[in-house]
Amino acid sequence: MNGNKAITKRDVDFAKWYTDVVTAANLARYSNVKGCIIYEANGTAIWEKIKEVLDKKFKETGHENVTMPMLIPESLLRKESELVKGFAPEVAWVTQGGSKELEERLCIRPTSETLFSDYYHEVVKSYKDLPLKYNQWCNVMRWEKEARPFLRGREFFWQEGHTVHATKEEAEAETKGMLEVYKDFFEQYLAIPVLTGRKTEKEKFAGADYTLTVESLMYNGVSLQSGTTHYFGQKFSKAYDIKFVTKENTFEYAYQTSWGVSNRMIGALIMVHGDDSGLILPPRIAPKQVAIIKATTDDETNQLAEELNKKLLNANISSYIDSSDKSFGFKLAEAEVNGIPVRIELGKRDIANKVITVSRRDTLEKEQIEFDIDIVEYINNLMENIQTNLYERAKTRRDSMTYHAKTLDEIKKIMDTQPGFIYAPWCGEEECELKMKEIKGLKSRCITENNEKETCPVCGKKSKHIVVWGIQY
Amino acid sequence: MNGNKAITKRDVDFAKWYTDVVTAANLARYSNVKGCIIYEANGTAIWEKIKEVLDKKFKETGHENVTMPMLIPESLLRKESELVKGFAPEVAWVTQGGSKELEERLCIRPTSETLFSDYYHEVVKSYKDLPLKYNQWCNVMRWEKEARPFLRGREFFWQEGHTVHATKEEAEAETKGMLEVYKDFFEQYLAIPVLTGRKTEKEKFAGADYTLTVESLMYNGVSLQSGTTHYFGQKFSKAYDIKFVTKENTFEYAYQTSWGVSNRMIGALIMVHGDDSGLILPPRIAPKQVAIIKATTDDETNQLAEELNKKLLNANISSYIDSSDKSFGFKLAEAEVNGIPVRIELGKRDIANKVITVSRRDTLEKEQIEFDIDIVEYINNLMENIQTNLYERAKTRRDSMTYHAKTLDEIKKIMDTQPGFIYAPWCGEEECELKMKEIKGLKSRCITENNEKETCPVCGKKSKHIVVWGIQY
Repeated sequence: MNGNKAITKRDVDFAKWYTDVVTAANLARYSNVKGCIIYEANGTAIWEKIKEVLDKKFKETGHENVTMPMLIPESLLRKESELVKGFAPEVAWVTQGGSKELEERLCIRPTSETLFSDYYHEVVKSYKDLPLKYNQWCNVMRWEKEARPFLRGREFFWQEGHTVHATKEEAEAETKGMLEVYKDFFEQYLAIPVLTGRKTEKEKFAGADYTLTVESLMYNGVSLQSGTTHYFGQKFSKAYDIKFVTKENTFEYAYQTSWGVSNRMIGALIMVHGDDSGLILPPRIAPKQVAIIKATTDDETNQLAEELNKKLLNANISSYIDSSDKSFGFKLAEAEVNGIPVRIELGKRDIANKVITVSRRDTLEKEQIEFDIDIVEYINNLMENIQTNLYERAKTRRDSMTYHAKTLDEIKKIMDTQPGFIYAPWCGEEECELKMKEIKGLKSRCITENNEKETCPVCGKKSKHIVVWGIQY
Repeated sequence: MNGNKAITKRDVDFAKWYTDVVTAANLARYSNVKGCIIYEANGTAIWEKIKEVLDKKFKETGHENVTMPMLIPESLLRKESELVKGFAPEVAWVTQGGSKELEERLCIRPTSETLFSDYYHEVVKSYKDLPLKYNQWCNVMRWEKEARPFLRGREFFWQEGHTVHATKEEAEAETKGMLEVYKDFFEQYLAIPVLTGRKTEKEKFAGADYTLTVESLMYNGVSLQSGTTHYFGQKFSKAYDIKFVTKENTFEYAYQTSWGVSNRMIGALIMVHGDDSGLILPPRIAPKQVAIIKATTDDETNQLAEELNKKLLNANISSYIDSSDKSFGFKLAEAEVNGIPVRIELGKRDIANKVITVSRRDTLEKEQIEFDIDIVEYINNLMENIQTNLYERAKTRRDSMTYHAKTLDEIKKIMDTQPGFIYAPWCGEEECELKMKEIKGLKSRCITENNEKETCPVCGKKSKHIVVWGIQY
């Protein structure tokens, strides 16, 4: 339906370009429910593919899925004071059920630490029950003022892992391990290079001992917090009374973690790889990898299309024949705007010459290949090549917008030219962190290493860490 | 955690037996959120398997998934009067967002006809856009007073297909086609025999022209509405203004359908197949098909377990080795209560004799087999056998509780002895339908055929249909 919509040039108005791509590629649209987004067929299909790959990784690392209620009674939420401070101002409250006023209002979950902790309180009795490594895929709600598809909105979709362990060491290993799972997924599947590090006290998750983060950089130099893992220590287990009998027959509070990524990843996919022609999907995450498009519908063309499609499907390559009523040109444009990695065009003259035309979405290059080639091998090689090229291209661009600065002047100059990731020393004081915000809204993305040899560009005192700064979605 | 819990005998107290199985098999538990259920790891895994199989069937029949918001503004809900009458008394209302009172209250979707229709209003312009065949997997909420895991509760999980077509014929074919998909799924995967037919006017979905239904019978003779498909005609398209330009360049309102099944199917699985030892899962829907349990952990046993597990996994049989800290006996009992179709026991003496013990969950029979047997072929045959046996067993029981009656006395006598499905003539009047309710709450399950040769057992007038009556969950 949207295949013929014009797309604003990316370098002219990035925000408008983003919205145009989202609409043109049939990913999402604003609904008539304020602050809520409809995720259309193509947007939902990408999320499903992401879920499929990540879910397999979670299960391989010993996690199981469970399903918690979507409503949280106010009293339950209030048990952990920092969490409630962090979320209470931005939740949706259910106050009426049927025609009755409720005695206690219930919030639609903004996150589920409370529900998991309450569950763990019930089921964790002995060290033999531990660890419990659960995850859930669900919708959550935060009462945001504005909505942008995949980036911000009242309802969003994510997974939240919640684990409980007998020891600090095991819980910390989980926190670090899941960060690696995320990093690997971003780089190997989404073809997006990422930074990892620890959040500052100011930026960490409410209630966490510490938060680790995966940060990516969009085409326009704005950074996106792309996934986080939290180590809770015993904070929640004390608030929710999650105790277990140890091997030594004593009682101890359990150690917990949580970790999550959301459909905001699709926003990153768009903003890292997309171009003026629309979406570009890395083959490993594309729900449809190959589009077969016919210029005519004579028997020979139809038969060739069916044969190619069958060969590819049998080799686990997700291909399809576009058999819709639309014109050849419209179909070519639609596959392009939708970001399908590879397009096979069956033109009449080509077929007479015993060739087919293959075009790759990342570079828009075309190649004519002979009928008798091993098409499965050819397409698999091409897709590997596209996957690598997208990653390398994104990394080159990210690196070109990555800076190292020691003074405020240097930082300001960078921000006046082309924002990106700025590595700089920091004294560790929140006051200096807040001061940085005055430079076009710079925020700390993450602490990458300890460093006591430099000076803080804001206050001039001795540095404690190297921090990466950036502006964020 | 629950593997050692006692289960009430099924024939002593069926309701208590059901709750015990749900708890003991780690399927679900009541949460501290009134009316809401926690679906635990085993319950969630079965739902995921159901989703995987059904989703594939939906896609094979040309459907795509989309994602609608979970909130519906009251004004949008009110556009279709019958729908709002049906659902308004039983929805949860969000009235506060953050710290502010909302100007318009929003309900948590009880179903999404309004949202899909509003979307179709936006995107359907021409016959070329049609049909649109969308589905979503989501949570919905109805403000029920009581909750029973998988059967009744405020929040439940389902899929809702919503399609829009250019012609009546195509929409009706979709309504019938999806009913067949459901029937096939129940019989081929869940091993549950089902009846299909049309709902009476009283029992049809609010706003539908007509509703088709899949009905199954539980072990205790209570029936379960297991899936429904609805033909809407142009009711919603007129209320929500879904018009398209036809080939002849005129305007016409579109024709719509919707269809859904929910996690209540898991309730049916429990109540049709389960026994005094707990859950029994048909192999085609079991997330874990084979449990390998070792009596000892010597090298030989470990190696044998690994070899067997690898062979089975490589043949796409979902097997696992229980490597937990628990005792041999506990593990055997746990696999049994969890309904794992096949258990392989590695005992020390068995291994010395070069045999392994395989036990099947449906009959609890055990067999010793030689090491050098083709284990993949053996297990595949056994699972086919279990799948067929479960279906046949359920069908035999269902048939034994299926009756044909012509008079109220006959019906009352049946209901005093053993309830089930009762085929009886009906005049078509709602008054007589309501009268039947006085007999232990009998309700019409579905109309199976037209029949004008009999007399209605209630009023004595000429019959119009043969209706199946039953008591329902």
